[in-house]
Amino acid sequence: MPGEFKIIERLRKAARRPSGALVLGIGDDCAAFKTAPGFETLATSDMLIEGVHFRVSQGLGAVGYKSMAVNISDILACGGKPLYALVAVGLPEKGAMRAALSLYSGLRKCADKFGVEIIGGDTVRSEKLVISITALGEVASGKAVTRGGARPGDYILVSGELGNGAAALKKNLAWLPPLRPELSQALCGRGLVNSMIDVSDGLSGELYHLCEESNTGALIYEELVPLSKAALKLSGGNRRMALPAAFFGGEDYELLLSVPAKFLGTALKLGRKKSKLTVIGRMLPARQGVKVYGGGKAKVLQRGGYDAFL
Amino acid sequence: MPGEFKIIERLRKAARRPSGALVLGIGDDCAAFKTAPGFETLATSDMLIEGVHFRVSQGLGAVGYKSMAVNISDILACGGKPLYALVAVGLPEKGAMRAALSLYSGLRKCADKFGVEIIGGDTVRSEKLVISITALGEVASGKAVTRGGARPGDYILVSGELGNGAAALKKNLAWLPPLRPELSQALCGRGLVNSMIDVSDGLSGELYHLCEESNTGALIYEELVPLSKAALKLSGGNRRMALPAAFFGGEDYELLLSVPAKFLGTALKLGRKKSKLTVIGRMLPARQGVKVYGGGKAKVLQRGGYDAFL
Repeated sequence: MPGEFKIIERLRKAARRPSGALVLGIGDDCAAFKTAPGFETLATSDMLIEGVHFRVSQGLGAVGYKSMAVNISDILACGGKPLYALVAVGLPEKGAMRAALSLYSGLRKCADKFGVEIIGGDTVRSEKLVISITALGEVASGKAVTRGGARPGDYILVSGELGNGAAALKKNLAWLPPLRPELSQALCGRGLVNSMIDVSDGLSGELYHLCEESNTGALIYEELVPLSKAALKLSGGNRRMALPAAFFGGEDYELLLSVPAKFLGTALKLGRKKSKLTVIGRMLPARQGVKVYGGGKAKVLQRGGYDAFL
Repeated sequence: MPGEFKIIERLRKAARRPSGALVLGIGDDCAAFKTAPGFETLATSDMLIEGVHFRVSQGLGAVGYKSMAVNISDILACGGKPLYALVAVGLPEKGAMRAALSLYSGLRKCADKFGVEIIGGDTVRSEKLVISITALGEVASGKAVTRGGARPGDYILVSGELGNGAAALKKNLAWLPPLRPELSQALCGRGLVNSMIDVSDGLSGELYHLCEESNTGALIYEELVPLSKAALKLSGGNRRMALPAAFFGGEDYELLLSVPAKFLGTALKLGRKKSKLTVIGRMLPARQGVKVYGGGKAKVLQRGGYDAFL
């Protein structure tokens, strides 16, 4: 059976030659790259474990694609441009080469689509399949959009539609997030967004993150939440039945963000061009809590969100 | 039992506030940092799996320390200054908080010792313990030392002593590599080193890497290879019996490097000040192969090196 060195060798041959800002790619102790003057480097890591975050039966190509996408999503959620990835993979001994090739074909497909270069990583033996990716990107100095910049009165918006992740999971499929690089860059480049997060663990959990970091409350209008066709189909077209998939389902990887009232028009105009962008509520003073309005009344939003340990 | 958010919260509180070049630390979608003008960013990832690379019985503090050290080692092997780390950890559900705290105490101890700041990561559930770290560092533009710069006639040197990793493994201990940041920076800062690698998989395998990337052969003198006390003790003081621990044992994380003949004196002088540095052989033209001289004759060096899949 093929050894680790052979797997690395094949990946290295498939990798492009270092060019531009990349000085040193796969195959040495480190990769090396330059950051343009006036820019900062963004870095994020996500780990996915077989049986916890995915099943092999979802197809390793799709699993690889998704693993890369969730990392790129974090860079976009800071308003950054994704550039590089390091990919550490633990592979079961049996069928390691075939698994590696399927996985990497998905990883590469996603990386290529979003202009990301795989510059390093590690390949080790593991009982269960493990994928740990670090994505690196850049953002103009001081322009990273955090979770903590929202103010009471700001509008709360979400990209695309929610519930796709939950619907795919019900069918044992890996949801391949569309991602929104153009929308993120257009909005952040013009300074229209003051807080942002990607919806990895359901709208509810992510909204609580924004509110806590920004020290705000929020009011979300149930009827404004954009629901995916897949989620609606699963609930027989019943909107209210489909809402939990959006609030608590997770794995959508859309962008949840806040926009000061004065920028709302410009943001929505850009949103129409780049991809769907929907107003779903407003930020409130912290003392008013995080609420959802539906069925004629406002109630406290149940705190959801996937917890790896619950 | 404590949830993922609580673990992250504890780590975040323990983390220092972003300062200097670090703009955004743990707790947002990404970390963000500045790279000084005239410098490049170095990036490397290593993944360690329970039962493959370590056992829980070695102590999770030691395992954490070692996991961080092997990543820092890669930055040093490129002549860089280690700065940041992202730490992704998969933890068994049972005893997750306690395991996380032991692991992170080791990770932090090593990170603090070498001036590395933990700026992000991920905490997930996993059957077996998994640690995947990405270390980031910087090096003056164009000054990264690769594996590919050696020339025939260069001297081959190694830092410290070899065989500690193999000896520790025999006792089911995690070897905590001393690492050589001052030596690496002193030698590379003066441009004395033209190829370098860290000895993670035994002297033999690493030497082959240098020779292949540099397109050279090599001759190593057995009697010059510095052996650790621990390795000698295990072989009852017999040098020849202890040599395999150095050539094929691995996990020493010393630096293996080549120095052009005209710089040898300066390099050795620096080595004496910073930490032990020993000449063990010379680079040869590629057609002469990779050889070892001992017992009165030169023979082809057995190609060793740990392979995750063999």
